[in-house]
Amino acid sequence: MFEKKMKLDALYEFYGKMLTDKQNEIMDLFCNMDYSLGEISELQGVSRQAIHDTIKRTEKVLDHYEVQLGLYARFQEKQEAFESILALLAQYEMTRDETCISQIKQIATDESEM
Amino acid sequence: MFEKKMKLDALYEFYGKMLTDKQNEIMDLFCNMDYSLGEISELQGVSRQAIHDTIKRTEKVLDHYEVQLGLYARFQEKQEAFESILALLAQYEMTRDETCISQIKQIATDESEM
Repeated sequence: MFEKKMKLDALYEFYGKMLTDKQNEIMDLFCNMDYSLGEISELQGVSRQAIHDTIKRTEKVLDHYEVQLGLYARFQEKQEAFESILALLAQYEMTRDETCISQIKQIATDESEM
Repeated sequence: MFEKKMKLDALYEFYGKMLTDKQNEIMDLFCNMDYSLGEISELQGVSRQAIHDTIKRTEKVLDHYEVQLGLYARFQEKQEAFESILALLAQYEMTRDETCISQIKQIATDESEM
């Protein structure tokens, strides 16, 4: 559940600009401000169900962009490469094992060429 | 000129899936296959001017996506960070200056959090 919300937040950050103003308004409250469905429903003066439906529909739109473009997945891959570099640096600082340095070089070379 | 073509190639790689089949067909020949306008015009049996116009129009569509989403710019930033890491690694291997390691750590930390 938490992971699903995290992914929705990320997809909204990536593709939010493609949404309509109305979708954007509700997604901003839900994703950026972390308002509950009930709170958004009160703020917007519409039923909780209507808010739920809008979010579900918008989620599908955002998913569709990611299926088409796959840019979030590509971005995540980059983040993971930076995390691997950090882990290898920590290992190097403890062990002074030079293979850590060559592994970092390999990752940075591969990623800078993609 | 060369840089402009490089950017167009990159934007096409990023947002090509959002184009129509016809635009895609021509952009694939132009960007991926590196065909000239004249060659595409012969292949498609339409005038060179028509191909030129289609490419110009498609360029605007791709530019529009980038203005909206800015994902290519974000991606480029990541690539540049990997290039900086490579440069710092090379410097470290020559000088064994530990500040290179801390700089790499800083870059990787900043980038993995974004």
